[in-house]
Amino acid sequence: MLLCDIGNTTYHFFLEDKGYKEDVNLFDPSIVKEKVFYICVNPHVKKVLKELENWIDLSLHVDMKKYYETMGVDRIMACEAIESGIIVDAGSAITVDVVKEGRFEGGFIYPGARAMSECYKNISSALTYSFNFEVDLDRMPKNSRDAISYGYLKLLQSEVKSYNMDIFLTGGDAINFKKIFPASLVDEMLIFRGMTNIMKRANLC
Amino acid sequence: MLLCDIGNTTYHFFLEDKGYKEDVNLFDPSIVKEKVFYICVNPHVKKVLKELENWIDLSLHVDMKKYYETMGVDRIMACEAIESGIIVDAGSAITVDVVKEGRFEGGFIYPGARAMSECYKNISSALTYSFNFEVDLDRMPKNSRDAISYGYLKLLQSEVKSYNMDIFLTGGDAINFKKIFPASLVDEMLIFRGMTNIMKRANLC
Repeated sequence: MLLCDIGNTTYHFFLEDKGYKEDVNLFDPSIVKEKVFYICVNPHVKKVLKELENWIDLSLHVDMKKYYETMGVDRIMACEAIESGIIVDAGSAITVDVVKEGRFEGGFIYPGARAMSECYKNISSALTYSFNFEVDLDRMPKNSRDAISYGYLKLLQSEVKSYNMDIFLTGGDAINFKKIFPASLVDEMLIFRGMTNIMKRANLC
Repeated sequence: MLLCDIGNTTYHFFLEDKGYKEDVNLFDPSIVKEKVFYICVNPHVKKVLKELENWIDLSLHVDMKKYYETMGVDRIMACEAIESGIIVDAGSAITVDVVKEGRFEGGFIYPGARAMSECYKNISSALTYSFNFEVDLDRMPKNSRDAISYGYLKLLQSEVKSYNMDIFLTGGDAINFKKIFPASLVDEMLIFRGMTNIMKRANLC
């Protein structure tokens, strides 16, 4: 059973217990002949896939009453993967979503590390630093690099911890963010687990 | 007694109890003939003012042992204005600094509203929203505009409130941020108060 999570830049495939990636601009989805169950946030790819019969859009099988209209389908799948907890998906944006007993309770969006670093740089060249993920978040900083690292990381850490729930960490930057959420469970396959749950409920597997 | 706080884009003058602004690119400081006590973060203007005898750089009178080397002089002056409290200076960046019994305890830097809004937009056109400063920060959001507004505002609000100190709000965006810090004291003249304190201590007035 082949699953695929398509973002703005990559096709992320998942087959049995292995993941692999293809570039959105280079990969031709019509070469895949088997059934692919996918989600997609890329508008151009969405159009292409609509024409391919063996590509099955799982977003059509989601009970959207549980979520909101403009919510990214990747966030929805991560929510479908867990019963209770707070999900931190650290990619180009960081989405934080709360699920209680299978019910989506709401969530927020924070900039990803690369975007936030650019943001500080655009304010002033004096704020051009890479983030220090090892910064001591229990002390107010007294140097510029830590002052922006704390501004970015401490605020996110406090908010996520304030829910006192199990933290599920996923996304391309999960390893870095594990440093500020040491008690979290890193699960790079969270979205695929959600997709599998949707398929089971829809009798697609 | 004429005071001036020079940023990247404006000369902000303060005379007796009135403030007025001049554009950095249009204003010629040599036309001022009286004494001006100033601070300046603009490297180009700094050079020009060094040549003018009646412009007196107050940063030279600060006890820098209390602060750190790359800390903006505007942040230092705001700290010099208060005895105890947490200062939120909401401009192109938001600087947050803690002062306890006249001692600087540290601070952090967060993006200003315009820069952060650009940051979300640069991640994805789907995140192009103006912030909703009226968003209910006690509930996890269930729509996109509130999801980014909460991400930006709630995290800052929680961190600032966690110190349980008097909040002093200043900077060009103070009015907007008053909505998330209703108990704060808005003081647009905070930096000038700090400058006056430095002058008193250095017997310059």
